[in-house]
Amino acid sequence: MTCEYCGKVSYGKLITERKYWNIFLAPSQRYLGTCVIAIKRHCPNLSELEDVEWIEFSNIVAEMETVIKKLFNPTLFNWSCFKNAAYRSSNPDPEVHWHLIPRYDSEIEFHGIKFHDPDFGYIPQPITRKVPTDVMNSMLSEFKTEL
Amino acid sequence: MTCEYCGKVSYGKLITERKYWNIFLAPSQRYLGTCVIAIKRHCPNLSELEDVEWIEFSNIVAEMETVIKKLFNPTLFNWSCFKNAAYRSSNPDPEVHWHLIPRYDSEIEFHGIKFHDPDFGYIPQPITRKVPTDVMNSMLSEFKTEL
Repeated sequence: MTCEYCGKVSYGKLITERKYWNIFLAPSQRYLGTCVIAIKRHCPNLSELEDVEWIEFSNIVAEMETVIKKLFNPTLFNWSCFKNAAYRSSNPDPEVHWHLIPRYDSEIEFHGIKFHDPDFGYIPQPITRKVPTDVMNSMLSEFKTEL
Repeated sequence: MTCEYCGKVSYGKLITERKYWNIFLAPSQRYLGTCVIAIKRHCPNLSELEDVEWIEFSNIVAEMETVIKKLFNPTLFNWSCFKNAAYRSSNPDPEVHWHLIPRYDSEIEFHGIKFHDPDFGYIPQPITRKVPTDVMNSMLSEFKTEL
C-alpha cells in the first residue's frame, strides 16, 4: 500500500488494534504524531462501513485526539479518508483508512528533534519527513503507553 | 467562514438539511459535485460529536456517495475534516464540517460544461473553480431531487 501521507510501503508501525480498526504510527512525521486508522477487513468505500464500525471509529477519534493533545499539544487535528494513491495503480484496490494529522501553530521538540508545521492554516502537504529510528521507537512507545 | 475547498464566504448553497447536519453544494466545483456537510450546532472538534451525530453522518455518507454516483459517476470520493482555514484568523472559531470531493479518472460533461480532474490519484488542490450561476442552479436542483 503506497499512500501520500502514510509513506512508501505500509500504513506504518502498529500502535494498537481495536475490534474493527488498526491504529498505526505513520512513517512520515512531517506533522508530529501523524497516525493512520485502518479498517481491518476489506472495505473499499466509507459508504460500506457498518454502524458498529462507525461507532468504534468515533470512539477512536475521541481517544486519539485526547492522547495526542496530552503527548504533543497540537493546535488542531486534520482527518481525511482519501484513497487517491490506490488509483495510481492500473488495478486499484482501495481500502478505507483515515489520516490523522495533528497541526501546530508553533514549534515543538520531541526527543531532541524540532518539529514545526510549515503549512499551518493550510492543507497538509504529502511531503515525506523521516525521523531517526530511535525517535520513531520512542514515539511508538509513548503512544502504546497511552492507548 | 472562509474555507479552502468551500469557497470565499460560506459553505455554499444549502441542498438539504438533516436533524444534525446541513448539506451544501460547495461554491468551488474544480471537482464536479463537491459538497460540504456541516454540523448544525457549535462544535469545534470531531472528538466532541455525539453518537447520534456520528450515526446520522454515516447515513449521509452512504446517501451522498450513492446519489453522486448516480448523478456524475465519479471514480472515488475524498472525505476530509480539516478546519485549517479557521486558524488563519487571529481569533479561530473552527466548526466541524466535512468536504466531500468526488474524483474522476476521465472527463465528464454537465450542462455543456466539461469537467476533468487534473489531480486524479493525488490530493485535491484548494484551487477555486466557479461555474456559471445557471449551471450551479441546475446542479443544486438535481441534488435536491435526489436528496
